[in-house]
Amino acid sequence: MKKHNFYAGPSRLSDYTLKLTAEAITDFAGTGLSVMGISHRSAEFKDVMDSSIEIVKELLRIPEGYSVLFLQGGASLQFCMAAYNLLDKNAAYVNTGIWATKALQEAKLFGDITEIASSKDKNFSYIPKGWEKEVHPETSYVHITTNNTIVGTQYKSDPDVGVPLVADMSSDLFSRPVDVSKYALIYAGAQKNIGPSGVALVIVKDDLLGKFERPIPKMLDYRTHIEKGSMYNTPPTVAVFACLKTLERYRQLGGVDALLERANIKAQMLYNEIDRNKMFEGTASVEDRSNMNITFVMSEKYKELEPIFLEFVAARNILGIKGHRSVGGFRASCYNAQREESVKVLVKAMSDFEKRYK
Amino acid sequence: MKKHNFYAGPSRLSDYTLKLTAEAITDFAGTGLSVMGISHRSAEFKDVMDSSIEIVKELLRIPEGYSVLFLQGGASLQFCMAAYNLLDKNAAYVNTGIWATKALQEAKLFGDITEIASSKDKNFSYIPKGWEKEVHPETSYVHITTNNTIVGTQYKSDPDVGVPLVADMSSDLFSRPVDVSKYALIYAGAQKNIGPSGVALVIVKDDLLGKFERPIPKMLDYRTHIEKGSMYNTPPTVAVFACLKTLERYRQLGGVDALLERANIKAQMLYNEIDRNKMFEGTASVEDRSNMNITFVMSEKYKELEPIFLEFVAARNILGIKGHRSVGGFRASCYNAQREESVKVLVKAMSDFEKRYK
Repeated sequence: MKKHNFYAGPSRLSDYTLKLTAEAITDFAGTGLSVMGISHRSAEFKDVMDSSIEIVKELLRIPEGYSVLFLQGGASLQFCMAAYNLLDKNAAYVNTGIWATKALQEAKLFGDITEIASSKDKNFSYIPKGWEKEVHPETSYVHITTNNTIVGTQYKSDPDVGVPLVADMSSDLFSRPVDVSKYALIYAGAQKNIGPSGVALVIVKDDLLGKFERPIPKMLDYRTHIEKGSMYNTPPTVAVFACLKTLERYRQLGGVDALLERANIKAQMLYNEIDRNKMFEGTASVEDRSNMNITFVMSEKYKELEPIFLEFVAARNILGIKGHRSVGGFRASCYNAQREESVKVLVKAMSDFEKRYK
Repeated sequence: MKKHNFYAGPSRLSDYTLKLTAEAITDFAGTGLSVMGISHRSAEFKDVMDSSIEIVKELLRIPEGYSVLFLQGGASLQFCMAAYNLLDKNAAYVNTGIWATKALQEAKLFGDITEIASSKDKNFSYIPKGWEKEVHPETSYVHITTNNTIVGTQYKSDPDVGVPLVADMSSDLFSRPVDVSKYALIYAGAQKNIGPSGVALVIVKDDLLGKFERPIPKMLDYRTHIEKGSMYNTPPTVAVFACLKTLERYRQLGGVDALLERANIKAQMLYNEIDRNKMFEGTASVEDRSNMNITFVMSEKYKELEPIFLEFVAARNILGIKGHRSVGGFRASCYNAQREESVKVLVKAMSDFEKRYK
């Protein structure tokens, strides 16, 4: 029976990506070899890497002067790479949750870090506003986390700051148009909206690199990977291949504008039900609600029914909606590959649960 | 028509690994979800990671006090992680080729590096001997590269040094028994003998970590990954799954003793032909010849036939035997998943070529 996969990441990939990746494991590009068993220097794999970079540039309308990289280590390694490469003396971080906190902590090894804004006072349930004007003009960069997977908040626009802007977009890149020209660095672990885990997408403005003296290990220096087109060392071939298929699919669907529309529809269906159904309530501040991770709990009166609801949805093949332990309740992740059908099944389960238990 | 895949890495994986990985991309462990689209925190994936670690320990007979990790970034990231974690003031490196040189260069960021021995004088065509007694007792560690993919040399035994021994075993781990107790740290990119690219296997002696003061970025600190069982951040799920299948296959085949026997047979067939056929000659010193990467050139008199030989074998579906540009000629990589049948086809091509062109 069909499963409804709401995992927060690694999360559902499209049937298009899965089918073509499974095929390429047996026969890649007509070579008779596996995409896992062919040299990354082969013409066939080089084409995968080059095409992936090209489609990223096209979909996100990346201006001249930026490089696109596919690297290993996930967003977690980017926490230190961002600082290694861009932090001279000090940087400012906006703290919007556990991942933002981790990025900030890691950067402390490399300079003075200012937590310029934080929503910790309300368990990170909102995106802090108005901090842009407090950015010191000599700070190396400001770091933001555009979508907060655990708490379900999301920036709705690209902030204007007078200094380089760095963003962890792991969980919402490709779900909306982004004005890349506002950013010095964008990075994203693939396993939500781009492909399988094991690869991170990095978009970096070339002329910000190498501006100060710090010896950087070769593998952690963006310039190494720019110079070698993400092939300084062996890239994760099967993961990059699956990213390419996902990116191709995004192009077929009409690009990021179309993806935003689809995301809005799915998220709105769930938020409508959360707001209508008195057994549930949303946990994120309404204006900052994420399109990608819809977080909710049972309202006070029904709190003890949470485990029952989890069983109730499991019987309908709904998987992965248990909330992160720091928030509790539920989280329905609706990345680009989430099907509208699955969202409808979940909404129906919520209203059926109301009929049964209210 | 069947291809004979001699790529140096990413290289051939067994049909067992490929078949089961392709299946898991569609339906992983009966979940109805893809191994690329399920949470790494799911019981099913946790079992993949735990089993992989367990089989590594079993196959290599790893003693107590060591941790086994599956990390991203390949061996190239280990070049700096090894130094970050283990290099206090100075370390010694044995330079046996391009990869050893890269490891050594990276370590220079972290302390004083002594190149204790080198075979650069003869284009790295041999393994230096007798350097063990020159190791200073206070050096943090000695670093070796047990198999040199490009030049086709291999250590035949585990050196005895009086200090911690660190080894890059990217291209020969699991091809022979290793006395792990002699090592402080063993690391290997998976894409030769363990699985697809995108994951590195690390075996580290726990009590050598944290012995001196150096702030280490979280993701580069072995202790982070030990504490979290290689799940500090999202692991490369499909790559680890494919490693597990390869490791299971090694167990089925009889473990590293059986794998050594198989490797000896395949390598010997090729070296016999190289030594018999006057059109070819081996490039590595005979006593240091690698079982994994068999390097050879056309002998002086037939040098100009090299491109012709490449075409000749290509017509027989033999792929990936062009040698690295620094050595020239040919390289037949015969990792564990290489089929005896393919080696026979190559040997036959060499003798047929002799009949035709000598």
